[in-house]
Amino acid sequence: MENDIFTRTFSPLLIVLSGTAGAGKDSVIRRMQERDIPFEFVVTATSRSPRPGEVNGRDYLFLSQTEFQAMVRNDELLEHAVVYNQHKGIPKQPVFKALQSGKDVLLRVDVQGAATIRSRYPQAVTVFLSALSEEELTRRLFRRGGDSPDQVALRLRTALEEMKQISEFDYVVINADNRLDEAVDVLHAILRAEHARADPRRIIP
Amino acid sequence: MENDIFTRTFSPLLIVLSGTAGAGKDSVIRRMQERDIPFEFVVTATSRSPRPGEVNGRDYLFLSQTEFQAMVRNDELLEHAVVYNQHKGIPKQPVFKALQSGKDVLLRVDVQGAATIRSRYPQAVTVFLSALSEEELTRRLFRRGGDSPDQVALRLRTALEEMKQISEFDYVVINADNRLDEAVDVLHAILRAEHARADPRRIIP
Repeated sequence: MENDIFTRTFSPLLIVLSGTAGAGKDSVIRRMQERDIPFEFVVTATSRSPRPGEVNGRDYLFLSQTEFQAMVRNDELLEHAVVYNQHKGIPKQPVFKALQSGKDVLLRVDVQGAATIRSRYPQAVTVFLSALSEEELTRRLFRRGGDSPDQVALRLRTALEEMKQISEFDYVVINADNRLDEAVDVLHAILRAEHARADPRRIIP
Repeated sequence: MENDIFTRTFSPLLIVLSGTAGAGKDSVIRRMQERDIPFEFVVTATSRSPRPGEVNGRDYLFLSQTEFQAMVRNDELLEHAVVYNQHKGIPKQPVFKALQSGKDVLLRVDVQGAATIRSRYPQAVTVFLSALSEEELTRRLFRRGGDSPDQVALRLRTALEEMKQISEFDYVVINADNRLDEAVDVLHAILRAEHARADPRRIIP
């Protein structure tokens, strides 16, 4: 079946967009949406408070500790973890609903979350997004609002540590300053190439 | 080294464009060149005579039986085989020269040749090009000049047999009638995606 070219069907992908803080995951996702690249973005649920400008349901699903714990208890999360003392996790239901309707699903997860998803769903396509240089990364982390200098320093140390794990990922995409569209082009190319695999990475049967 | 994102360098790829007769390999390569997609096309050497319109050095390297045998004896071919009683093979020297100068190399080879290259260079990126349907393929084989009806029938049987081997390839690209640019887009995406691999498929050290 799988080997019959003339009857091949579209297999939706589970794409994990990861990378360090300051890599620009949110900007990349927003630009992909603006460019009408077809995929379903499933937002992460979190127990932390919204940062200035963040919108519930678009950036994150903001839950109370109690609501989050209930999702954990009911096994409603694809993966979840405590990062910087806050709960984060990907709700299962919208992921499988989108895949079943034939849509590629894109998740934005930190490096720890990517490792969990990879171990549970080895067919997931994992992408590590990165700044072009350490200077660029440092600048971005300092510019970002809402964090104390200590938090920034911690994020930078964590980022440099996380970068050692890139060989666990399928792809590395560089998101350099003022070259957002290049990063989006490469991500788009990855989606097209993965759909052309002779042996597609099927998440759902 | 390989794991340091900030010092990653470009690794040239060896791309094997294969597929059955009538898949449209030549048209795809020509359109890729017209669209200035950067790669070096290394032509196959053959002992058969040129078909109408074929140019020596552009389409094939046309050699005498004697010249071809000398290349085989001197181990100057990446792979070679006898297909339909004619010798075909890829000269090594231009392949490694281009790779060493940092260029992606694209080879056009039949399914048998692709299998040989894959076994010798498992890092090669292999693509199986195909018509959209059996009707389309049959029509193309009949339309093609220079073959007798018996030769066409043999090519069609061989093609359907070769299609059973697609799972040996990395990618399958459909080249449907009047949708050449779509096939080229997918090939271009494959090149970009392969260059973004966390663990690049290096042919040369």
